[in-house]
Amino acid sequence: MRSFDVVVIGAGPGGEVAAGRLAEAGLDVAIVEADKVGGECSYYACMPSKALLRPGELLAEARRTPGVAAAVTGDLDVAAVLRRRDELIGGLDDAGQLPWLAERGITLVRGWGRLAGEKRVRVGDEILEARRAVILAGGTRAALPAIDGLADAEPWTNRAAVTTPVIPESLIVLGGGVVGSELSQAFTSLGARVTLIPGERGLLPREEPFAGEQVAQSLTEQGVDIRIGARAQAVRRTGLGVDVTLSDGVTVTAAEILVAAGRTPQAADLGLDTVGVDSPRVDENMRVPGSSWLYVVGDLNGKALFTHMAKYQAAIAAGDILGEPMAAEHLADGPGSPRVIFTEPQVAAVGHTTATAAAAGLDVRVIDLPTDGNAGGAFTGGPRGTARFLVDTDRDVLVGVTLTGSNVADFLQAATVAVVGEVPLRRLRHAIPAFPTRSEVWLYLFNALGI
Amino acid sequence: MRSFDVVVIGAGPGGEVAAGRLAEAGLDVAIVEADKVGGECSYYACMPSKALLRPGELLAEARRTPGVAAAVTGDLDVAAVLRRRDELIGGLDDAGQLPWLAERGITLVRGWGRLAGEKRVRVGDEILEARRAVILAGGTRAALPAIDGLADAEPWTNRAAVTTPVIPESLIVLGGGVVGSELSQAFTSLGARVTLIPGERGLLPREEPFAGEQVAQSLTEQGVDIRIGARAQAVRRTGLGVDVTLSDGVTVTAAEILVAAGRTPQAADLGLDTVGVDSPRVDENMRVPGSSWLYVVGDLNGKALFTHMAKYQAAIAAGDILGEPMAAEHLADGPGSPRVIFTEPQVAAVGHTTATAAAAGLDVRVIDLPTDGNAGGAFTGGPRGTARFLVDTDRDVLVGVTLTGSNVADFLQAATVAVVGEVPLRRLRHAIPAFPTRSEVWLYLFNALGI
Repeated sequence: MRSFDVVVIGAGPGGEVAAGRLAEAGLDVAIVEADKVGGECSYYACMPSKALLRPGELLAEARRTPGVAAAVTGDLDVAAVLRRRDELIGGLDDAGQLPWLAERGITLVRGWGRLAGEKRVRVGDEILEARRAVILAGGTRAALPAIDGLADAEPWTNRAAVTTPVIPESLIVLGGGVVGSELSQAFTSLGARVTLIPGERGLLPREEPFAGEQVAQSLTEQGVDIRIGARAQAVRRTGLGVDVTLSDGVTVTAAEILVAAGRTPQAADLGLDTVGVDSPRVDENMRVPGSSWLYVVGDLNGKALFTHMAKYQAAIAAGDILGEPMAAEHLADGPGSPRVIFTEPQVAAVGHTTATAAAAGLDVRVIDLPTDGNAGGAFTGGPRGTARFLVDTDRDVLVGVTLTGSNVADFLQAATVAVVGEVPLRRLRHAIPAFPTRSEVWLYLFNALGI
Repeated sequence: MRSFDVVVIGAGPGGEVAAGRLAEAGLDVAIVEADKVGGECSYYACMPSKALLRPGELLAEARRTPGVAAAVTGDLDVAAVLRRRDELIGGLDDAGQLPWLAERGITLVRGWGRLAGEKRVRVGDEILEARRAVILAGGTRAALPAIDGLADAEPWTNRAAVTTPVIPESLIVLGGGVVGSELSQAFTSLGARVTLIPGERGLLPREEPFAGEQVAQSLTEQGVDIRIGARAQAVRRTGLGVDVTLSDGVTVTAAEILVAAGRTPQAADLGLDTVGVDSPRVDENMRVPGSSWLYVVGDLNGKALFTHMAKYQAAIAAGDILGEPMAAEHLADGPGSPRVIFTEPQVAAVGHTTATAAAAGLDVRVIDLPTDGNAGGAFTGGPRGTARFLVDTDRDVLVGVTLTGSNVADFLQAATVAVVGEVPLRRLRHAIPAFPTRSEVWLYLFNALGI
C-alpha cells in the first residue's frame, strides 16, 4: 500500500492547485485522475469556449469601427478558429500538463478514486493511504434533464460541442444559462443556424434581469432564434438530424442538439458512505464538518461552480492542512463569487444582485449607469451596456456590482477589490479612473452618489 | 460690474467640473473662456488622439488573431478615421458643450480672464466680482524648446497634429513623452513615415524603464524610425518640407514636424501679481497658501497634468468652497496619479515607480509578471507586456503598479482601488479574478507573494 501525506482525487484546476501548494510546502502528494489532468475547464469548458467566442467578438468590433470596417471584407476562417481551439486544448492530450506535476514531485495515479474508509482511497485494485488528508475535487458533469427521448437522441453536452471538428449546419441549444448563452453565440458566429430554448427561467436567470434581456436581444440580432417561454417536451433523432417538440406545439429541427441544462456533482461514486458522510458540503476551510482529514474543493462542494473559485478553495484547503489558515469572511465568496459570461455584451458581476440583496434583508441603494456612457465608450462602438452598483448605505460600501458591455471582463477586478476590500465609498471616491478610459463609469458612480 | 459667488477662469475639464459642482449646489457661477468650452482635452488632446489610435490598434489585433486575420484584406480607411475624429471633436465647434453650462445656470463669459486684485477678474474691459472665490483653471500649452530655427519652421504642436485634415507623407516627432509616443504610433498606422527623436531621456522617462523599452521596440516594429540618443540641433523649413539636423550630424527630412516637448503652464498673464502671489502652487484643497479665496485646479497648478486629475482637483476645490471638504491623503495623487499611455503596448500605472519609491525611501518588494502569462492572455495574441507590483512590506499594501500590454487601460482601476483603498494584501488576496480573464495577473501576484 502506497502512502502519501495527502491524496487528492481529481486533477482539475482545484485538485492541481491543492496538490501543487501542498507539494511545494514539502508534503508527499498523490493526485488521482480518471480522465485528463487539467480537468473539464482546460479541455471541455472555459478554454475552448473562449477560443470559439473571441474571433467572432473581435470581428464584430472591427466591422462596427469606423476606418476599420472597410478593411474587413471576408468572413471568419472557421477552420483557423478550430485549429487555434485545438492548440489551446492541446489536442485533448494532457501530456502538456504532466511536467507541472512532475516538477513538484506529485505522484499521478490514473484511475477513478473513491474513499475506502478513513484516510484510504481506492483506485482500481490499489489502496492509497493518506496520512494527513484526502481532498475530493471530482467536479461535475453535464446534467441531462428528463425529457422524453433526449437521452436516446445522442445529444451533445459541452464536451462534444466545444471539441467538435466541424460546425454543424444547425444546432438546437437546450438551456439559457452561461453555457447555453455562450455557445449559442459561438456557433452562430461560426455559421450554424442556432435555435435556443432557454427554458422557463429565461436567459442568465441568476444575474440581474437586464443582463439576460440584453444578451437575449443581442443574440437575436446576431441571428439566434430564441424560443422564450417554450419548453422542450420530446426529442427524436431522425435520419436528417434532431426534432424537438416544444410545449407550444411547434417542432424545431436541427442537425445537432446541445444540452446545457446545468451541472451534476460527480459525488455518487466517491465512497462517502465508507466514512459515514452523506454529502460533500464543507465548512469555510473546505473541510467536511466533523472530519479532521476530509476536504472537498471546487464544483463538487456546490459553493460556486467556477474554475477560479475552485483554485481559491484549493488554496484555502491547502492552507488549513499546512496550519496556515487563510479563510476570510467576505461577500465575494459562494453565490457572490466573481463571474464573467463571455457573450456580447459580456456580463461581469460580483457580490449581490438586487434579488440576492433583498433576500439577505440588505437595504441597498441601486445606481444604474450606462457602461459606455463616457468618453472612453466613444471609441468602442459597442453595445451600450449597463453598470449596476449596489451600495450598502449603512456601511458605506459596495455589496454588489453587475456590468454588461463589450469587453467588460477585465473591468470586474476593480469591483471585486472594492467589494472584498470593503473600501469605504468616501475613500473609494479618490480612486480616480484615467481619462479617457471606460473605467470612468466609476467616476459617474461617485457623481451619482454626490460624493 | 457683474457679481458672482464664484468666477472660474478656464472652461476645460477642471473648470467645467468646478463650475458645475458649485452651480448644482446653488451658487451663482461665471466661467471665463478665451478659446473653446471643453478645453484642450476635448479638441486637441485626449479625445482626437485616441480617435486616431484606436482603429490601428484594433486592426492590428484583428490581423494577429487566428480566424479573423483571413477576413481582413484591406487597410485602414484613413478618411473614415478622420471623419470619426471630426465627429468626436465636434468639428472644433464648442456649441455642443454650451447646453451643459446653460442647464446649470452658469454664465459663460468669452475672453481672456486675469486677476485684477482681490476677488476681481478682468475680461477685456469688464471687471467681474467674485464674492466667494476665484478658481484658476487655465491649463497649459505646448512648450517650444529653444532649438535653432524651430520657431520659424511652422512646427505642429499637438493641436495641428490631432486636427490635421490630411495625413502627411512623413512626419518628424520631437519628444518621446506621452504625446510624442502616442502620435508617432497614430501617424504610422495612418500611413505617414515617422521619425521619432525622443531626446536624451528616451521614451516615457517618467515610467518604469521597461515601459519605454517595450514601446520603443513596438514602435520600431510598426515602422517608426527612432533616433535614440540624438538631439535636434537645427530645424529649417524648405520648399519640400522640414530638415532637422541631429547632434550626430545626420539630417532627417519630412513633410511636417511635431513638437511634443512638454507643456508650459499658461500662468504668465493671469494677473497673479495683482494679488501678491508669485506661483500657482496650491495646498491639498487646491487653495493658494495664505489666500482664503483663490484656487488653482488642473494642469496649471503642476500637481498632475491629466484631465482626470483636473476633474478630481475641481471636485476638491468645490468641496472646500462649499464647506464640504473631501481632500484625502493617499498615494495616487500628484506624481502617483493614475495614468494611461495609449500606445501598443499600452502603459497603465498608478502610484510609485521603482525610481520614485527609492527616492521616497520606501523599502519595496518588486514583483514582475508577464501581463499575458495566463489563460486569458491566450486569446488576445497581443504583445506580452509586463506587470510590475511594488509591495510595501512593512505596511502589507501595494504602493505602485505598472502594467504594459495590449488593451490594459481598463486594468488600471483595480490597481488604483487597491492602492488608494490601502487594502491589506492578505485581504486583497481574496479578490479572485475570474477565469479565464487576463486579470489573473493578480492571482499570479498572490502566488508570487506566497499568500
